[in-house]
Amino acid sequence: VARLITLVENEAPGLREVAAALVKYTGHAQVVGLTGPPGVGKSTTTNALVAQLRRDHQRVGVLAVDPSSPLSGGALLGDRIRMQDHATDDGVFIRSMASRGHLGGLSAAVPQALRVLDAAGFDVILLETVGVGQAEFEVASLADTTVLLMAPGLGDGIQAAKAGILEIADVFVVNKADRDGADQAARDLRHMQSLASTKAGGWSRPILKTVASRGEGIDDLLTAIAAHRDWLAASGCLADRRQARASAEIEAIAMGAVRARFAAVHGSAALGESAARVVAGETDPYLAAEQLIAAL
Amino acid sequence: VARLITLVENEAPGLREVAAALVKYTGHAQVVGLTGPPGVGKSTTTNALVAQLRRDHQRVGVLAVDPSSPLSGGALLGDRIRMQDHATDDGVFIRSMASRGHLGGLSAAVPQALRVLDAAGFDVILLETVGVGQAEFEVASLADTTVLLMAPGLGDGIQAAKAGILEIADVFVVNKADRDGADQAARDLRHMQSLASTKAGGWSRPILKTVASRGEGIDDLLTAIAAHRDWLAASGCLADRRQARASAEIEAIAMGAVRARFAAVHGSAALGESAARVVAGETDPYLAAEQLIAAL
Repeated sequence: VARLITLVENEAPGLREVAAALVKYTGHAQVVGLTGPPGVGKSTTTNALVAQLRRDHQRVGVLAVDPSSPLSGGALLGDRIRMQDHATDDGVFIRSMASRGHLGGLSAAVPQALRVLDAAGFDVILLETVGVGQAEFEVASLADTTVLLMAPGLGDGIQAAKAGILEIADVFVVNKADRDGADQAARDLRHMQSLASTKAGGWSRPILKTVASRGEGIDDLLTAIAAHRDWLAASGCLADRRQARASAEIEAIAMGAVRARFAAVHGSAALGESAARVVAGETDPYLAAEQLIAAL
Repeated sequence: VARLITLVENEAPGLREVAAALVKYTGHAQVVGLTGPPGVGKSTTTNALVAQLRRDHQRVGVLAVDPSSPLSGGALLGDRIRMQDHATDDGVFIRSMASRGHLGGLSAAVPQALRVLDAAGFDVILLETVGVGQAEFEVASLADTTVLLMAPGLGDGIQAAKAGILEIADVFVVNKADRDGADQAARDLRHMQSLASTKAGGWSRPILKTVASRGEGIDDLLTAIAAHRDWLAASGCLADRRQARASAEIEAIAMGAVRARFAAVHGSAALGESAARVVAGETDPYLAAEQLIAAL
């Protein structure tokens, strides 16, 4: 699994064949996205979820994505620490991915890595983002179920979260619920939720309280995640979401391929010739661009 | 000129025809890029350069680009203030452009706006960026002559500038040279310059001191800019730079056109059908992407 994800990250030769071979084994795993502002306890919650899922005999994959990191794959410090809890458990696979500045953000490599984990037979894949902002939306777009984490005393953590994320989250969690202000944070969330446009389909989005560091409330969170999975399947939304995700994936790959063709043309004699004609005033850049596209 | 630049910014219908009509009038203007960390006095320097160029009977266009601004064109506050000095002078044209989050950064609209100003007969176009980082490199890539501004006491301003920018600058300026530390800043620059790889072609990059707010040293700066233009022309580097710039421009337009075609496909029935087949495990996303490209 690790080698296949590295292959995906590096867009290595053989990726095409691997993708084609894997596709018929995919579709089983529930992808659960975990988002929320920094400091909310996403990693601790992920860890607690993994521990409980293992007690329930579920196989768990964890993909931690840091879109702001310049690292090219490999394990982040946080993983190496967390890995120790599960190092000898082959029912758990934990991996970090850095986005390495792809124009497509998470869109290029992460969906492929999710496919690898899905095909490898993991029941639940926890997709955790270290980043904020756009990354939260991207995680939500890749997940079957999106969990938004908040914590009391995070300096208007709820306001800090982009308003739009409230609309794409399926389950809300106030973590660190043993702290002052947890009830207020839950009330604020409920209020914000009432203002946000409701999703179609009748899923009533729960607001849970957890103390992930002590494992409190994790059972209820997993029950909510499982209930959402059942609702997705029964309502037909699962198929819709997965189709939308596959569309985005195809587009991202196609755009990447086109970019690669342009990169191959960069500095080529044909482009140089066109550029010289533009400099000489013999043609304009728009016409030259059309000819370039036609040549590709 | 203002209307043509708006047309360029909006990628409005007629842009193609305008570009084709303008191209034979271009190639006269010297594009001078002004970069440097925030607070260094870029706007003040631009203003002083405009005043002196007007005394020398040169027509001047100013394009101020703020890649971080969400504004869609229009004049920024700074311009409206600066405009007052030149409001009745039709030998000066000042315009702000915001990059509006184009994936291509400055690459899409700014080169076209430069063409408009060039074709309109401006002798010198000052291209000033409000942004930092990547924007500095983009400005340098669009300019014939790149001026890097520094100032003493800017908290390691020189270190703050990306190291690479030292290699692409043609003229160095220590502005606010009446402040303590100006000589040290100039020495630091000379030291950094000696470490940077030297450019081919024998242009010895001057390090000047200015107090732009009082117009001091602006004459020398303009002399250096003119000397660089003469050197560019004599050495053949001008043609090389302009050809590289035209290549980048063609590529940016072509990529934009391809992106637009993808946008048109987004959510289409054909893409939906491919996505459904991926979800069903009947095809893989790479094959679907290839078919999508073929269909475009």
